[in-house]
Amino acid sequence: MKKHNFSAGPCILPKEVLLKSSEAVMDLNGSGLSLIEISHRSKDFVDIMEKARSLALELLGLEGKGYKALFLQGGASTQFLMVALNLLEKRAGYLNTGTWSKKAIKEAKIFDDIYEVASSENANYNYIPKGYEIPTEYDYFHCTSNNTIYGTQIKQFPDCPIPMVCDMSSDIFSRQIDYSKFDLIYAGAQKNMGPAGTTLVIVKEDILGKVSRHIPSMMDYKVHINKSSMFNTPPVFAVYTSMLTLEWLKNLGGIAAIEEENEKKARLIYSEIDLNPLFKGFAAKEDRSFMNATFNLTNDNLKETFDDMCLEAGINGINGHRSVGGYRASMYNALPYESVQVLVEVMSELETKA
Amino acid sequence: MKKHNFSAGPCILPKEVLLKSSEAVMDLNGSGLSLIEISHRSKDFVDIMEKARSLALELLGLEGKGYKALFLQGGASTQFLMVALNLLEKRAGYLNTGTWSKKAIKEAKIFDDIYEVASSENANYNYIPKGYEIPTEYDYFHCTSNNTIYGTQIKQFPDCPIPMVCDMSSDIFSRQIDYSKFDLIYAGAQKNMGPAGTTLVIVKEDILGKVSRHIPSMMDYKVHINKSSMFNTPPVFAVYTSMLTLEWLKNLGGIAAIEEENEKKARLIYSEIDLNPLFKGFAAKEDRSFMNATFNLTNDNLKETFDDMCLEAGINGINGHRSVGGYRASMYNALPYESVQVLVEVMSELETKA
Repeated sequence: MKKHNFSAGPCILPKEVLLKSSEAVMDLNGSGLSLIEISHRSKDFVDIMEKARSLALELLGLEGKGYKALFLQGGASTQFLMVALNLLEKRAGYLNTGTWSKKAIKEAKIFDDIYEVASSENANYNYIPKGYEIPTEYDYFHCTSNNTIYGTQIKQFPDCPIPMVCDMSSDIFSRQIDYSKFDLIYAGAQKNMGPAGTTLVIVKEDILGKVSRHIPSMMDYKVHINKSSMFNTPPVFAVYTSMLTLEWLKNLGGIAAIEEENEKKARLIYSEIDLNPLFKGFAAKEDRSFMNATFNLTNDNLKETFDDMCLEAGINGINGHRSVGGYRASMYNALPYESVQVLVEVMSELETKA
Repeated sequence: MKKHNFSAGPCILPKEVLLKSSEAVMDLNGSGLSLIEISHRSKDFVDIMEKARSLALELLGLEGKGYKALFLQGGASTQFLMVALNLLEKRAGYLNTGTWSKKAIKEAKIFDDIYEVASSENANYNYIPKGYEIPTEYDYFHCTSNNTIYGTQIKQFPDCPIPMVCDMSSDIFSRQIDYSKFDLIYAGAQKNMGPAGTTLVIVKEDILGKVSRHIPSMMDYKVHINKSSMFNTPPVFAVYTSMLTLEWLKNLGGIAAIEEENEKKARLIYSEIDLNPLFKGFAAKEDRSFMNATFNLTNDNLKETFDDMCLEAGINGINGHRSVGGYRASMYNALPYESVQVLVEVMSELETKA
């Protein structure tokens, strides 16, 4: 049976990417050797790394603008720490829009002072705070562009008087933004880019080198930049598969093309949520994420029926996060429109049955 | 043409592991979903992680002895830092046997005081120091079991009066040692265990929690232990492929069986090096590594001929590291005896030609 994979991450990847990446595990480019058993210093792999790095900048429209792309290890969780180690001298401002923002704040607090410029914690993060002030004397401002757990997304980024750092783990490459507004962007690969195991970091070089602390080598962006993202052995499979996904996106027409698709998918599910009396959206309408739609049943007694119907239709991974409950349909770049259609049909069929 | 892969790492993996791992990228266990697109919290993946962790302990004979196994990210390079953050309060002793020991010392020096208990730097690391003293008042002693660049290997570990930490990246699972002599073992996966992108850490729990510093979450072994090695999204592909390799090793008869194979391969190449007047071994005989044989041509004029002959025979990855020069044949667990035979034939053919 065809599966419709709405997992929040790791998540669905394009079929052709899976195929190529699976083939490379047996034989890379007809070399007679596997992708994962060649030297990372070989020309074959250096080419892969360089292509992945340049595709990332190209797709985001950041080529030739002073940015470097790195494929590191350790997930966004390690970036929470690295951002602070590399940029935090006195004080930084963080926007608290959910669990991941909170974790970023926690890890940064170890070093110096953190100030929450705004928070939506009082409403269980069902909206994005707006109209806050970012003090000009701070070292940087940090925000999370999309909040998978709550299904909220920043639609309008602030005009930031200081370096702006953004955790874009769950919506990078999904929509057209002026990415040059940001000085540092990081994103775990496992949503719109590839398998878990690598983290993309895009950093404007001129913001680095301004803190007085000694930064351990593996935590130092400058060390990784100087070694072209190969200071130590990189996670070759994750980088290769990310490169394939970025290539797939470019061939599709880039971010402009995928944004259109993502909007269509989001419109379809949200209109069903709004029209079907059996469902209720969790997030404030103006802040609804185009990546993760969160919703609850208005009548909990229907849960078993709905879950069974989803299972029968091949729908996978739509359980909501425990801190919100209900359902979450994650609709990352590689999820076909057809999968959302199937889910919406099941939702509307439930209405007929109930 | 069949390739003989002598790469120093990433390196050769068992064919059946590559096959299963390639299949799982398309479909994991007939689930209709790829290994890399399912949730890491799904039962399928939790089972994989737990199996990998328990196989590691089982193969090393460390089950039920107070150890925990973790599959982390960031390579051995990140362990250089984590070891010091988690264990170093006042002073630690390091054995300096080469580039990787030196890097470990450099990263640990940031925090406190490091003392080199012994070093073979004066002889370009062509031997393993012996007969050194390990001060009982130090926090821990650190050594590198096998030095890939120089082709040396510690044959006899010291009786250590303090916690013993060992970087076993390049020879873990290759030979029978009393692994319970160590309190912390770490190893990047990309030699005897799997693809680059995960690092195995085996730690005796009772040595943790004794330093006064605050340890950032991602750097804290206790945090990872408490979350069963899933504090954040793990590198699923690298963990799965490592699990398959450990399973392969177990089915083969475990470390005892592979040690026999490794000894046969090492005997074959070293006897050729010693008997063939055109070659000269780099490392001191008693310290020769069973994983990486380093050797030079006695007559540099033969280099082109020898390189061509290797290429024709399908021999891959035997260039020596720039700091030693010459050749390095890495013979990790998955390298077949037959590949060493082919190399030795080429070496002896060169003698006939010359």
